[in-house]
Amino acid sequence: MGPVVGVVGAGQLARMTQQAAIALGVELRVLAGARDESAARVVADVRLGDYRDISDLRAFAKGCDAITFDHEHVPTEHIRALAASGLAVRPGADALVHAQDKLAMRRRLTELGVPCPAWAPVGPQDPMAAVEAFAEEHGWPVVLKAVRGGYDGRGVWVCADAAEAREVLATGTPVLAEAFVPFEREVAVLVARSPHGQGVGYPVVETVQRDGICVEVLAPAPGLDPEDAAVAQSIALTIAKELDVTGLLAVEMFQLPGGKVVVNELAMRPHNSGHWTIDGSRTSQFEQHLRAVLDLPLGSPAMTAPVVVMANVLGGPDPDVFSRYEHVMAHDPGVKVHFYGKQVRPGRKIGHVTAFGDDLDEVRARARHAAVHLSTGEYV
Amino acid sequence: MGPVVGVVGAGQLARMTQQAAIALGVELRVLAGARDESAARVVADVRLGDYRDISDLRAFAKGCDAITFDHEHVPTEHIRALAASGLAVRPGADALVHAQDKLAMRRRLTELGVPCPAWAPVGPQDPMAAVEAFAEEHGWPVVLKAVRGGYDGRGVWVCADAAEAREVLATGTPVLAEAFVPFEREVAVLVARSPHGQGVGYPVVETVQRDGICVEVLAPAPGLDPEDAAVAQSIALTIAKELDVTGLLAVEMFQLPGGKVVVNELAMRPHNSGHWTIDGSRTSQFEQHLRAVLDLPLGSPAMTAPVVVMANVLGGPDPDVFSRYEHVMAHDPGVKVHFYGKQVRPGRKIGHVTAFGDDLDEVRARARHAAVHLSTGEYV
Repeated sequence: MGPVVGVVGAGQLARMTQQAAIALGVELRVLAGARDESAARVVADVRLGDYRDISDLRAFAKGCDAITFDHEHVPTEHIRALAASGLAVRPGADALVHAQDKLAMRRRLTELGVPCPAWAPVGPQDPMAAVEAFAEEHGWPVVLKAVRGGYDGRGVWVCADAAEAREVLATGTPVLAEAFVPFEREVAVLVARSPHGQGVGYPVVETVQRDGICVEVLAPAPGLDPEDAAVAQSIALTIAKELDVTGLLAVEMFQLPGGKVVVNELAMRPHNSGHWTIDGSRTSQFEQHLRAVLDLPLGSPAMTAPVVVMANVLGGPDPDVFSRYEHVMAHDPGVKVHFYGKQVRPGRKIGHVTAFGDDLDEVRARARHAAVHLSTGEYV
Repeated sequence: MGPVVGVVGAGQLARMTQQAAIALGVELRVLAGARDESAARVVADVRLGDYRDISDLRAFAKGCDAITFDHEHVPTEHIRALAASGLAVRPGADALVHAQDKLAMRRRLTELGVPCPAWAPVGPQDPMAAVEAFAEEHGWPVVLKAVRGGYDGRGVWVCADAAEAREVLATGTPVLAEAFVPFEREVAVLVARSPHGQGVGYPVVETVQRDGICVEVLAPAPGLDPEDAAVAQSIALTIAKELDVTGLLAVEMFQLPGGKVVVNELAMRPHNSGHWTIDGSRTSQFEQHLRAVLDLPLGSPAMTAPVVVMANVLGGPDPDVFSRYEHVMAHDPGVKVHFYGKQVRPGRKIGHVTAFGDDLDEVRARARHAAVHLSTGEYV
């Protein structure tokens, strides 16, 4: 039989990885907190345990040919301990720390000459002095970011003045300071890298955020200058290589007026900005991640249509999403519906839809219609 | 959460259905004979039992929103009993019997005016007299087919003369007689039909058989006259409607010199001739079957490339298929590999590959290269 890949975490990323594992004959094992988690509902080999507990992790990893992650919250020292016992942990701790710790990420990217917003460490001694010195040089607003643990807009505070910064610092959360970037739009580059050192880049996409949550992904990023696209892909491939990433790396970037990009965030796993690849690319990001983690040759990132739009489905007031399939599927037989089998809570990412075509406005309208209807029952 | 669909049987068809169920948020339950069956390895809700035992079937079906099948071997009377207890069994017994019983199929299709080879019932009284009378009218060879239970070329005997026919009859297997069709090629039409009565047809494909086993599927069937294609699709949609099929219907046909088709076999489930749709169509046959079974609107059958070729991977002498991924993936990053997680036995269907492009010869060569290498380790 095929190799066993253990995924720590059982959210929607592990769930969608199972679709790719089924095709490849890879046996997926997930470490879940509970039987009803998104991936635990669709995998035969579910182990219950706590990803913060090294003995749970060791028991889980036994018999796996490779270990990877659904999220960034596994303590770095545990990842190191698993690797030290001879397990193939991908990505490794020395790479993953740059997706876990924003201060480590900024330090390393700056050393590598990768364009970043201006930034500075804050504290722990007299953090307010550090923020004010930073504001003196770069002006307000100042963006404070939690060094660890933020996601989907959480852990990011845009502070208009010293009073707002003081409020954030009063929580005691370790932060760093970044200059506010007056960006034109946000783009993302997804690349994969295998232990052999092979790298593959997907087309640069535009990510549309609302309230800090990604609502739409447009592939490829509309109107992007091919030279700017090549620079963005090259940045992502360089980061993957220099940080020795194995598996996927998603690089979220701000695009400035004039076209230049600066790096906002890193993730080392399948990423929301790559969900369009399930139906819109010859190799889904989930298959690509499995290939990389198993050190198999990487797959083609070619698109299956000229324009692909992914729209997230957020939980709305009525949790009966399934009852709204009928309208969406009757209205548009070409749209793909993905539902994660999670409890529906308002604002939570519970699924996504993907639409394809030649014309961006038309494809975007179709994706939005389906996503909004599944979320709220409205017709837009 | 989503609806629960129970699949009786846990082979590769149920396994690939799980990929579609994951996307739709459908909870798939499979009835398996053993834990290590193809689908039982990739589904959370596995029930062990015997599909020939009505009490096992009843226990399995409890709590399912719909019941469907991975194979045709469930006794018709059990399917009737499940439906009588109020379960949504799709397809129903009155439809499915035409895929289980070739005599019932020929009778019904002939009533409907669907083109079939000349045929006649045989026995049970003096079957040899019936075969000889049939040969008198239609000549030798005569094709004898088992009324029930044949698949992949088993249960079909092409008899050159009376002596060969006598040998087949001596086994006591109930058979019918069909005229030997001097066909140009074999084609297949896959359609779906929902309880609402919506129908969808996929492009007509050519199926290439060797030793009675499908080795390649070419989509669309090369050089097929559009009018002949429309006739073939219309035949399949008519059969689906008249037999009240819910779910998929695969119609295998012989194409005669001149273009006309006659119906060879029916299957009412996802079918080998439709595996290309996983990567080559906007809606895979597995998703389409789930949609139909749940009475959801059907999805677009549009192709994702002008030419798609699927090649089956048959078991070869060395069971370590995974060790041969490296060459196949490095050689052709665009080919999709599907491995069913089954025990490798020589000649057994253990997976398939799919390739895409514009040029049939090139795409076919790529698919064949990958399939043969995965099977035998050879380079062709």
